[in-house]
Amino acid sequence: MNINRKLKELAKVIVKKGVVLAEGEILVIQASVEAAYFSRIVAETAFEEGASEVYTEWFDDEMDKLRYKNESIESLTKTYPWSGRTLLEYAKKGCCFVKINTPDPDVFSEISASIISENFKAKRKIDEETNSMKMNGTCKWTSLAIPSKKWAEKVSPELDENEAFEKLWDMFFDICRIDETNSVENWDIHTQNLTGKANYLTAKKLIKLYFKNDIGTDLVVELAKNHLWVGGTLPSKSGISFVPNIPTEEVATAPYKTGADGVLVSTKPLCHNGQLIDKFKLVFKNGKVVDFEAEVGYEHLKHIIETDENSCYLGEVALVPFDSPISNKNILFYNTLFDENASCHFALGRGYPVVIKNNSIMTDEEIAETGLNISSLIHVDFMVGSKDLDVIGYDENNNAIQIFKNGNWAF
Amino acid sequence: MNINRKLKELAKVIVKKGVVLAEGEILVIQASVEAAYFSRIVAETAFEEGASEVYTEWFDDEMDKLRYKNESIESLTKTYPWSGRTLLEYAKKGCCFVKINTPDPDVFSEISASIISENFKAKRKIDEETNSMKMNGTCKWTSLAIPSKKWAEKVSPELDENEAFEKLWDMFFDICRIDETNSVENWDIHTQNLTGKANYLTAKKLIKLYFKNDIGTDLVVELAKNHLWVGGTLPSKSGISFVPNIPTEEVATAPYKTGADGVLVSTKPLCHNGQLIDKFKLVFKNGKVVDFEAEVGYEHLKHIIETDENSCYLGEVALVPFDSPISNKNILFYNTLFDENASCHFALGRGYPVVIKNNSIMTDEEIAETGLNISSLIHVDFMVGSKDLDVIGYDENNNAIQIFKNGNWAF
Repeated sequence: MNINRKLKELAKVIVKKGVVLAEGEILVIQASVEAAYFSRIVAETAFEEGASEVYTEWFDDEMDKLRYKNESIESLTKTYPWSGRTLLEYAKKGCCFVKINTPDPDVFSEISASIISENFKAKRKIDEETNSMKMNGTCKWTSLAIPSKKWAEKVSPELDENEAFEKLWDMFFDICRIDETNSVENWDIHTQNLTGKANYLTAKKLIKLYFKNDIGTDLVVELAKNHLWVGGTLPSKSGISFVPNIPTEEVATAPYKTGADGVLVSTKPLCHNGQLIDKFKLVFKNGKVVDFEAEVGYEHLKHIIETDENSCYLGEVALVPFDSPISNKNILFYNTLFDENASCHFALGRGYPVVIKNNSIMTDEEIAETGLNISSLIHVDFMVGSKDLDVIGYDENNNAIQIFKNGNWAF
Repeated sequence: MNINRKLKELAKVIVKKGVVLAEGEILVIQASVEAAYFSRIVAETAFEEGASEVYTEWFDDEMDKLRYKNESIESLTKTYPWSGRTLLEYAKKGCCFVKINTPDPDVFSEISASIISENFKAKRKIDEETNSMKMNGTCKWTSLAIPSKKWAEKVSPELDENEAFEKLWDMFFDICRIDETNSVENWDIHTQNLTGKANYLTAKKLIKLYFKNDIGTDLVVELAKNHLWVGGTLPSKSGISFVPNIPTEEVATAPYKTGADGVLVSTKPLCHNGQLIDKFKLVFKNGKVVDFEAEVGYEHLKHIIETDENSCYLGEVALVPFDSPISNKNILFYNTLFDENASCHFALGRGYPVVIKNNSIMTDEEIAETGLNISSLIHVDFMVGSKDLDVIGYDENNNAIQIFKNGNWAF
C-alpha cells in the first residue's frame, strides 16, 4: 500500500465529493494538531481545485484535557464578543468547512460529565449561527476522523501500537472506498446507489416508521411533513449535493419532533466528546425522552439529553443495513462517524432543515411547523441497528411497506 | 539520555526561569503544531506551578507556505477588527507568553520576499499593542525553537534523518543547560553570571562603544541615555527578572537611535521568516542604514530594512563571547535564537524600553528622548561577532575601557 497516494486520494474525495469545492471558493479546515500532515494535503488539493483561500483553525484534545483537569468552570466557559466571529465571516462568504479529527475514544474519560457539557455548550453557543449555516446548506461541509495511535490501540488492543495503527488505516481506506486511482469515481457510484434508495423512499411519502427488534427496540416515529430522504449526501442551498460525513452508508430523514413513542435500545457504545456511554435505553412519549437507563456513562447521557429544551427530542432517523461494509468488519470503532455507518441510528437534538422540501425558501418558523427539531445546540447520533431489526413504513393511507427485514434493506 | 525527563526539565526552566510564572497567572502558549507534544508538557508544568489558565494558539509554517504560494496578497494581508483581540485581552490581564517554534530554515525559500514581508507586517500590526506590552515588561515572555527534523537535516546534512534529529536534540539540551535533575539551578547560576557582567557595564556609564575587526566591521555606536545592561534576563514592570530567550548568552543594551556611524559586516547567515540572508554588510550614518550589500538574500534584507521608518535604525547591541558554549559547538544553526547566542550581534528595529532606567514611570515620549528606537514593527537580530573582534567602551570623560579583546570578554 502506498499510503501517501491513498492520503492524496482521500484528500481528493474530501475536496471534490465532500465539500464539492468550486473555483474561487474558500476552504476552512478545522483540524486536530495531530492531523497537521494530512490537513496540508487537503489544503494543497483545495488549491489545485481552485480554492481562493484556505483558513485553518487547530485544536488539540490533549491540551483541552489538561485545561479540564486544572481550570475553573468560569475559565472553561469564558467567551468574548468576538469569539467565533472569524468563522462566521467565512460562513457568510459561503466557505466550505472540513473538520479533521484524530480521535482518542478515552481522551476525556477522567473528566466529569458536567465540565465537558458546560464547555461544550459554551463552544456551541459561540458557533451557533455558523452551525446553522452548515445545517441549512448555506455552507457545504464534511467531517471525518482519521486514525490516531490511541484510537488504533482501542480498536485492536491485541496488536502492538504500530500494527494496530496500520490495521486501522487499512480498514479506514477500505471503508472509505479509497484506492490508489479511482476513489472519486468510487464515491460517484456509491452516492448514486444511496440516492436511489433515498429517492424511492421519498416517493413513498411515508408518514411514520415502526422499528422493532428482539432486544427491546419498539418505537413508532412520525416523519416531518414534506420530508426528503437523503442518501449519503445533503443538498446545499445552491443545489449541490455534498457529502457531510466520510465514511457514509446512511439513508436518512427527519422525524416529526413530537411524534416518537416507544423504546430505543442501543446496540453499540456511544463515544461522545471523548467519553463513553454504553448499554443504554431511551423511552419516548410524544417525541420526548421521558425515561432512560445506561449501564455505562449514565451521567454523560443525562447531560446530553438535558443540554437544552430540544435536546430530548429526535432530529434524525437513519437507515443503514446490518450487512454494510463497515458492519461487516465486525469491529467496534468507538467512533460515531464509523459506528453510525454500521448501524441504523437516530440523533438527539437539532435536525437538518435541508431534508425538508423547499426549505431554502422557508422561514425558520415554517420549517419548525413541518415538525423538524430545529433549534438545539446538539446533534448526537446513537446506534440501534441489529441483525433482527425490522422497519416498516406507513403512508397516509396506512399502507405498510417493509423497509428493513432482519437488519437489511427489504427492497 | 532520557528524553522525556529532559523535556520535563526544559518545561520547568521555561515556566520557572523563562516566564517566572506565579500562582494564579495565565499562560499563553503560541506553538507550532509540530511542537504539540512538548507544548502539552509546558502546559502541564504551568498548571503544577499554579497557572489559573493555559490558552494555546497554534501555527503551522507548512500551511502558511501553501497559502503564500497560492493566495492573493489581499487574502494574505486581510485582518478583522477583532484580529489579535484575544491575545491583547490576555496581555491586559498580565499573562505570560511562551512561544515554541519548530523551525525549518528553508521553509519559505521559494516565496518572494515581498509576500513574506507584507504578510509579516499585517500580522505584526494586529499584535502591535500586545508586542509593546511584552517589550515594555508588562508581560513576561519566553521564546524558544526546539528541534524539527528539517532543521536537524540542515544543521547536519551528512547524517541520516534520525541521527541528525538526535544530534540536534543532544546539542540543544547541552546548549540550553538542560540535564535530568538540576536544570533550574543551572539557570540560576548562569543568569547570575550574565547579570554580574551586565551590572559591571551599567556601572561604567558608557556613552559609546567602538566595534572593530579585520573583516570590515568598524562602527561607533552611542548608547541610549540612562541605559541598563541586562544579562540573559529582562526586568518585568513588577521587577521580576525573566528570561526572554532560551538559550541565552548575551549581555545587551540599547543603542542611541541616531548615534551609529560606520560599517557592520555579518559573520553568520541570518535566517529570518524562513528565508536566508548571508554575507551582508550594513553602512550606518547618524544611526541610519544608508547603504547595504548582501551576497545572498539581498531582497529579503531590503524588505527588513524598509519595513517602516524606524526599521533602518538599531534597537539592540549585544555582547556574546566568541568562546561561548554555542559558539564552541562550531556549528551553524541557521536559527537566530542559537546563532545570535554564539556571536556579538545587533538588532534592527524596535528596542526594549525595559533597558532604560525608570522606564516603568516614563511616557513613550520620555523613553524616545533617551534615544531608544521605540516604534518599529520589527526587531531582527544579526550576527557580527568574530574571533578577532575588539569592543572598546568610552565613558563621558572619554576614558577607554577594553570590553572585548579578540572576540572574548576582556575583563
